[in-house]
Parts: sequence; C-alpha cells; structure tokens
Amino acid sequence: MIRTIGIIGSGNVAWHLVSGFVNLPSVTVKWITSRNEKTGSDLAEIANVKYSSTIPNDVVDLVLICVNDDAINDVVSSIPPSTKVAYTSGTISIEKLGVKHNNLGVFYPLQTFTKGKDVELKNVPFLIESNNQEFTIELKELAQQLSENVQEMNSEQRKQLHIAAVFSNNFVNHLLYLAQEHLKENNIEQEILNPLIRETVNKAFELNPFQAQSGPAKRNDKTTISSHLNELTGLQKDIYSLITESIIKTYSK
Amino acid sequence: MIRTIGIIGSGNVAWHLVSGFVNLPSVTVKWITSRNEKTGSDLAEIANVKYSSTIPNDVVDLVLICVNDDAINDVVSSIPPSTKVAYTSGTISIEKLGVKHNNLGVFYPLQTFTKGKDVELKNVPFLIESNNQEFTIELKELAQQLSENVQEMNSEQRKQLHIAAVFSNNFVNHLLYLAQEHLKENNIEQEILNPLIRETVNKAFELNPFQAQSGPAKRNDKTTISSHLNELTGLQKDIYSLITESIIKTYSK
Repeated sequence: MIRTIGIIGSGNVAWHLVSGFVNLPSVTVKWITSRNEKTGSDLAEIANVKYSSTIPNDVVDLVLICVNDDAINDVVSSIPPSTKVAYTSGTISIEKLGVKHNNLGVFYPLQTFTKGKDVELKNVPFLIESNNQEFTIELKELAQQLSENVQEMNSEQRKQLHIAAVFSNNFVNHLLYLAQEHLKENNIEQEILNPLIRETVNKAFELNPFQAQSGPAKRNDKTTISSHLNELTGLQKDIYSLITESIIKTYSK
Repeated sequence: MIRTIGIIGSGNVAWHLVSGFVNLPSVTVKWITSRNEKTGSDLAEIANVKYSSTIPNDVVDLVLICVNDDAINDVVSSIPPSTKVAYTSGTISIEKLGVKHNNLGVFYPLQTFTKGKDVELKNVPFLIESNNQEFTIELKELAQQLSENVQEMNSEQRKQLHIAAVFSNNFVNHLLYLAQEHLKENNIEQEILNPLIRETVNKAFELNPFQAQSGPAKRNDKTTISSHLNELTGLQKDIYSLITESIIKTYSK
C-alpha cells in the first residue's frame, strides 16, 4: 500500500494532486522537488513539507513525476531503478521509456487543471497502467482514494484518449477565446454568448454532437459562409475555412 | 402591438419560435407557409393552423421569415411592401436587402436550435433591429414576451456576433464530434470525456478562456504535439496543426 509520496514538479497537475493527497488520512506527501523554486515552495507549503531543488534521499513508497512530457525520460532515469515511480502524462508510453525500473507506472488524471481553480477530483477519470501487476493494484488503490472513476488503460489507448481530450478541451477552449476576442474587437459584451455556450454542451450530451450540429456549415449556406470569411483575417480565417470544410464533409457523407 | 403572426419556413428556428408563440396569451400564429410540406404540416399542427404551400392572403400584424439566408431576399420581395416583415438571420443586413418595405426588421434569437431539443427561450438573447423606430418597439415587445434578454443591435454588430456564435457553438460542437469519433475508432467509451467537457465550460466562465487554456500547445510541448500529429490524418490532422499554431501564437505574444 502506498502511504508516502514524493512529488517531482510544481505545475498545475502537481498542484491539484497534492491538494487532493493532503486530504487523505492514510497518505503523506513527504517531499516536493521542482526546478522552479517559487512554485515549488508554494506547493511545499500546501503539503506542509520543505521544498528541495534536488531529489531528497528520504525513502518513499512512490515517486510521482508531474513534469512536462519532454522531461519525463530524464527525470525517471535520475531515480534509482528499485524505487517505485509513476508519471502523470497522457501521451508517454511506458514501453518507450528507456529505463530499467521494475515498478514503473502511469497515474493520469483526465482533466484540465489550472492552479487556483478548484476541481472535484472525485469525478475525474484516473487512467492507471504499470509494468507490474502488483504495482498497478497499488496505483489503483491510491487513485480510488481520490476519485470514483479509476480505470486501467494501456499506453496506446491512453495516447488516443489524450488526443480526444486535446480536441474537446484545449481546442474548444481556444475557440471560445477566439470568439471572445472577436466580440471585444467589435465592442459587443462578452456575456451575450454565455447561454449559447451552455446550451452547446447540454445539447451535445442530450443528443450527440452529430445530431446537435447547427449553423451555416451544416446547412452548406454559402452566402453566410462567404460573408463571414470576408470579415476574418489570418489564422481566424484559416480556422473558419478548415472547420467549415470538415463540417460540410461530415454531413455530405 | 403585434397580435397575429404568419410564419414562413419550418426549420429549426421556426419550430422553436412557433413553440414559444403558441404559449403566449396575446399572440396568435395565423398561418404557416413552407416549401417543405412534411415539416410545414408538422409545424402547422403545433400551431393548430392549416399548412399552406403558398403565402395566404390573410392579413397579419407580422410576417416572420425563418428561412435560409440564401432565400431571404426573394421571400421578402414576394410580400407586399406595406406588410410588416421581419427575418431571423444573424448575418443578413437590412440595408443590403433590395426591397422597399417600410417596416422591415430583424428578430434574431442567438441560440442553437434543433427540433425536438427543448430550449428555455426566456434565457435566449433576442437581437432586434428595424428600419422604423415604431416597428422596432413592436418587435422588442414581442420578443420580451418570450425572453428576458432583448436588445437592439445593428446589422454590422449582429453579423460580428453571429461569427462569434459560429466559433463558440458550431465549431465547438464539431470538435466534440471529432473527439467522439476518435474515441469510437479506438474502442474507448465516449462518456469518459464528459467530466472534462463540463469542466471546460465551467472553467472558461469562472476564469476566462485566456487563463483557462491548458495542454501541450499552451506549453509548446513539441514532443507531445508531434506524437499526436503522427496519429492523425486528413482534416483532423490539419485542424490539430492549425489550432495548435493559433494557441502557440496566442501565448507567445
């Protein structure tokens, strides 16, 4: 059973997981290591431990790596192969890491995290995988203390899920940003879109996104599409064209 | 005061507006005309009137045109210039219509409508405009019986608002569709994304979309981005590249 955890990283994922762990009676965050002294110290304060710029020698049941995908291989390599290690990436495959750890796992929370914006972890799907069945069980037991939705998923499926998450969160959010910027440029109050945005999601759930589609591209309404394109420039115009093309293609099948 | 209405069109907008009008004590839908006999008859049944394939001679206080943008000019032209006429388009400008009507207006509900999916009209912004101040007041009074959010807006601003609505509804919904299709192709249950999608909207409202952004493009995490692009083809790949480029540009300013 995992009772003590060391955390590497102090970004958004680390921040939310540590905030969850500190509320668990049977789990203790022992240390927090981060290249960034400011965010590392802030997070150490939440966990009530000392910040350290290098990995401490204190033995823990699990080292949880919450760093950018680019850095995971190097960080895992710097930890003794006998230590139990997991990382929080959606995309990095266990098999492709060039390391010799006997207990190497994935602890991937499928959610968008920003420091200071609370998230109910209990609704967040946690996707678990490891190279050792006993360790997988331990990671699942740990995740189950945070969330009611814990599943095993292999690296290949997790990567595909991450891609779907990028479309449905990162890209959706960016479109909302572009819409708000467009209103701002035209001196229109931004709140006017809120009922539409809320209904967009409600409708996609109640029907499904295929049935829920509406608008000029769905109707292949060329007058409106070209009138809109005339108002746009740069990347906004390219995005308008490309998604319109994709919608037209979807409904002409 | 507008007490009697004739409706032209039987698509999603007509369906939702008629469903709203029939509940108003002081308004009567007198007739429904549509090129499509099937949907026209169905809608006439909701309004408890006879379906007609051509515009009837019955005088009404308002003819409300709920047809595709492409057809609006022709339909308005077919109505006597002394009749009060309004249309429901976000994009078509009153000034650019080549007609001589003294009471020509816009009655634009900013929402995504699909038949059979109920919408609370009282929260829907109605954007009103006309070429005659008295008629504008009448259209606003009519809209206020359906909605608590009625505003005057000129054609130029309405068109820009419609563009923002296309990004934040039509395009967002299509990204949700692409995400669901991607899961289906990879045999992953689609409900797994629901908490993420709900949080996407909650977060965009609570913070704002600029602050709410997360993900590989925001971090300019090239390893993940290229790993994702390797898994995608066709328009999905183009959309991934283009929105990623736009996010990177947004955060490198």
